[in-house]
Amino acid sequence: MSAVLDPQRTLAELKELRELTSDQHGAQRVAFSDAWVRARDWLASKLAELPVETHRDAAGNLWSTLVGDSPQALLLGGHMDSVPNGGWLDGCLNTLAGLEVMRRFIGEFDGRPPVTIRLVDWADEEGARFGKSLFGSSAFSGHLDMAEARQLTDKDGISLPEALGRVDISFENVLEAQIERAGAFAYLELHIEQGPVLLDLGLPLGVVAGTFGVERHAISFTGQAAHSGSTPMKRRKDAFLAAARMAPEIHRIADRHGGVCTIGSCVTKPGIVTSVAAECHITLDQRHLDPQALAAMRDEAMTASRHFADETGCTVAWSRLCHIAPVHFDPQLIAFACEAVEEIPGSCHTLPSGPLHDASEVSRSGIPTAMIFVQSLHGLSHNAIEDTHEDDIVLAIRALDRLASKAIRCATVSPGQAGSSRQSLYSTRTRICFEYPPVS
Amino acid sequence: MSAVLDPQRTLAELKELRELTSDQHGAQRVAFSDAWVRARDWLASKLAELPVETHRDAAGNLWSTLVGDSPQALLLGGHMDSVPNGGWLDGCLNTLAGLEVMRRFIGEFDGRPPVTIRLVDWADEEGARFGKSLFGSSAFSGHLDMAEARQLTDKDGISLPEALGRVDISFENVLEAQIERAGAFAYLELHIEQGPVLLDLGLPLGVVAGTFGVERHAISFTGQAAHSGSTPMKRRKDAFLAAARMAPEIHRIADRHGGVCTIGSCVTKPGIVTSVAAECHITLDQRHLDPQALAAMRDEAMTASRHFADETGCTVAWSRLCHIAPVHFDPQLIAFACEAVEEIPGSCHTLPSGPLHDASEVSRSGIPTAMIFVQSLHGLSHNAIEDTHEDDIVLAIRALDRLASKAIRCATVSPGQAGSSRQSLYSTRTRICFEYPPVS
Repeated sequence: MSAVLDPQRTLAELKELRELTSDQHGAQRVAFSDAWVRARDWLASKLAELPVETHRDAAGNLWSTLVGDSPQALLLGGHMDSVPNGGWLDGCLNTLAGLEVMRRFIGEFDGRPPVTIRLVDWADEEGARFGKSLFGSSAFSGHLDMAEARQLTDKDGISLPEALGRVDISFENVLEAQIERAGAFAYLELHIEQGPVLLDLGLPLGVVAGTFGVERHAISFTGQAAHSGSTPMKRRKDAFLAAARMAPEIHRIADRHGGVCTIGSCVTKPGIVTSVAAECHITLDQRHLDPQALAAMRDEAMTASRHFADETGCTVAWSRLCHIAPVHFDPQLIAFACEAVEEIPGSCHTLPSGPLHDASEVSRSGIPTAMIFVQSLHGLSHNAIEDTHEDDIVLAIRALDRLASKAIRCATVSPGQAGSSRQSLYSTRTRICFEYPPVS
Repeated sequence: MSAVLDPQRTLAELKELRELTSDQHGAQRVAFSDAWVRARDWLASKLAELPVETHRDAAGNLWSTLVGDSPQALLLGGHMDSVPNGGWLDGCLNTLAGLEVMRRFIGEFDGRPPVTIRLVDWADEEGARFGKSLFGSSAFSGHLDMAEARQLTDKDGISLPEALGRVDISFENVLEAQIERAGAFAYLELHIEQGPVLLDLGLPLGVVAGTFGVERHAISFTGQAAHSGSTPMKRRKDAFLAAARMAPEIHRIADRHGGVCTIGSCVTKPGIVTSVAAECHITLDQRHLDPQALAAMRDEAMTASRHFADETGCTVAWSRLCHIAPVHFDPQLIAFACEAVEEIPGSCHTLPSGPLHDASEVSRSGIPTAMIFVQSLHGLSHNAIEDTHEDDIVLAIRALDRLASKAIRCATVSPGQAGSSRQSLYSTRTRICFEYPPVS
């Protein structure tokens, strides 16, 4: 096997996969669907050509292991699943780039690298069918909420346990996927940015500092239904007015703190043209890399909502939908990723990730993690027009390859150079971990 | 029959009707329903005791005629139908007050008044089942849009023509109800205010200047769906933000012109917590008694919507749902109504009506019209807590009776006193009519 990386092969494979699992509306590799099984079988056929051991873990993640001199393992990962009508890169680029890097290591080390190298294809990163993302990686990390997951159903009323059963995964055993963590000293992932930051900067690549923490709430304003014709303006208790005032306010809050805030859903009741809204229900999604700033954004939005409710004669109630602590990736791996990008050559720009990734779960489990982003054209993903320049994809695969080499070299340095053991760099590094108190 | 008005009898009849056609959730006299038929039969039994001819017209309106010396007719009206879970007064107070006034005239004139007196119970004022109000009175006025009405269906898919057929009304003939206009020289109606104006003023009664004109539009803002985590605030095209800015703006517009503006419905798409809204659809209902002010309110809201769309990188489209020209009631009858209220005694306050009424349709048909409002407790209607002090109901019936007497006296003055004929006052009065150009 050649020791030369061949990113053009990855491009060809991405197109082959698109042909196999997309229609005119985009990629259809929704986890546990027939198209996803087809994608996985196709991936397995590629892996069958390599000197690797391949198996599916208890949560449906697909692991391919190239055994090295040391059982300490470098993990490379991605996800073959897509949203419905998705793009041709989101998730599968990661897996196939990892596959190519593994091929290169097989060539370089003649099938026996100094450390074990493992490619993982996570199951159901998107959560498109059951509304809960990062299924496979959160089982791996041990953070999957079994009680919640047990209750999940798709739009046809099929439960997650039932859907898993149909692809021979036993729901009650999924947390056994945690055994795959054994020996892992680093996790690396390449992903399209899915946002416009690199596009605006004119950079092909970026290094991910971490993934935003998330505060997600349902906010309900309650006023008084009143006839649109007979009720003077000053007599109204207009729940829509109270909620609407939140829209410019959350923009101000986001700008003040440098995070993002989104009201994605608004529902009015009775919701008829001839009545002042008695109720207005909005969702608020707030994200920031810094937990203090995230909490401040939430508190300021709460305060503002009470003010707007008071002003309009309404009441307001908050209900938390979700809290996810920010994840900061490994400082040493981030530094390696920057070096790798600069050697391509390019300039290193670190940026936070708004969306969550399987890498967030791996990092939460304590495994040093890093991600490289490649520029998204249009700054968009999760639709058929998602795209990235092929030249940038080639650069990205080369950067991932260099990052992987750096990680392996660092893990295999002698004790005298980097501490008391080959893994010292990772076990002694300063981890920036955030434990975030739940809000009642 | 006694020549003395007995408003206590009306109160007793209102309670009897409530017993007959309400449940624990309120009045259930939805037009064409069994409860409505029951209410009508009950009304017919009351009319059967009087020396009147009673028949149902082609649109289902129930007419009772007390023939007088002149075929020129004073009309008294109301509607027995209610919204589902409605109040005990909305509509039936009008009819039953008219019934009591007719009884009093029978007594005063020993069964033969100088002019003909007719009580009309309109069919389907509320439009609760088919979403189109003023069915019977708009057939009477000739303004019913037959093509539109033919297509109306209820939530069970039953068409209006089919529902009418079930109560022996032939849809295709409903406009024949226009023949009932013959000879009418005035139309009078008593109604609960359904708003808080008289309540706030501490007045039991008010005189209605007319009914608001209505501009009703669906407004759609279109932006760009974008991931709530990966899209920086400055890169967003947030359709909800654009629409939300309309809420305080329409309050400013209404305050500036002294009208009312309402955004009753807001729908976001995709409407999910993790995406900036690509589309936001709101409804805007604007009402004013002055057509120029109404047009200005509409134009200012349009201008503002374009400004908010530009500011947020969105586009905006307006689609008219409905336009109704303001209706100004007859100045002479308004003056009589004021006199009547002052004689109760009380103080006369004229106010516009936000909701439409059958009186609006009668007025549009060219018949001089006036309405008296009685205070609504809580300023609310269309629900079970709708209420009015019984003392105020008594005052209202007495005021309606006095107004009817004044209208009859004026119509029967000799030619030398008021013009060339007994009807001169009404035929030569200055009618304030508004013809409003349609907006393309």
